[in-house]
Amino acid sequence: MLVLAIDPGYGRCGVAVVEKAEGKERLVYSDCIETSAKDSFPVRLSEVTTACAELLRAYKPDAVALEKLFMTKNQKTAMRVSEVRGALIDLATRHGVPVFEYTPGEVKSAAAGSGSADKRAVIKMLHALLKIEKEIRHDDEYDAIAIGITHLARVRS
Amino acid sequence: MLVLAIDPGYGRCGVAVVEKAEGKERLVYSDCIETSAKDSFPVRLSEVTTACAELLRAYKPDAVALEKLFMTKNQKTAMRVSEVRGALIDLATRHGVPVFEYTPGEVKSAAAGSGSADKRAVIKMLHALLKIEKEIRHDDEYDAIAIGITHLARVRS
Repeated sequence: MLVLAIDPGYGRCGVAVVEKAEGKERLVYSDCIETSAKDSFPVRLSEVTTACAELLRAYKPDAVALEKLFMTKNQKTAMRVSEVRGALIDLATRHGVPVFEYTPGEVKSAAAGSGSADKRAVIKMLHALLKIEKEIRHDDEYDAIAIGITHLARVRS
Repeated sequence: MLVLAIDPGYGRCGVAVVEKAEGKERLVYSDCIETSAKDSFPVRLSEVTTACAELLRAYKPDAVALEKLFMTKNQKTAMRVSEVRGALIDLATRHGVPVFEYTPGEVKSAAAGSGSADKRAVIKMLHALLKIEKEIRHDDEYDAIAIGITHLARVRS
């Protein structure tokens, strides 16, 4: 079971490829796609979907897992992030890959044992669970890894 | 100037191809894409984007115009509609077609002269402005035509 997990965003978009083999989770790849605020939204969206399309082609995952966000303080940002999510759902469907969506609470619960765990607890658990050898600069990348771990915890490998 | 206008939705999605030539607006095509509530969201989204991709290939529009929605009572529906919008923005960008977004107020204002015009007034004005020969079953289709008219009113043809 190989999953491409994405923490959707148009400024920073965390991506992670996580695998479960012989009962053991493994981090195959992770990155944070970054776009420039100088570019228009369609250009930034296109950069994100183009990068994710390359990951779909390169890793041929069995599933795409995305974070689902209902509520937020900033309605405009929430709308744009939803737009990124939609483009990614459509992208995965075009590649014939099923999409799974998890709420932030589900991700925290699966990655750190509690739906109200803080970011530090999640990161600590990810390091305990996985060999993370690369330097991770942005939380979005950890978020993507956590989403991937959530999906692996939900499916039988 | 040929514009593909879309009133984004995953249950019903209004689409219209509207043209301005020699100072006169003309309705080239309109339809309402409908999907089944029995299908999953990714399947419904894919049906909408596949139908719109066919329109982009068939009509080669100069622009795609979309309705932009910020506020709504139902947060979950708003999120899903935003996801459709995002997939359509990405689709247009992949086809090299620029995307323009208009708020409901801008559409009412352009199509019926007032940002607070009601649906009936908008429909009446559309019939006065365009030769609409086909039977239009759903408001979503009128909405798409109105979005197209809004774009034509904003650009020099």
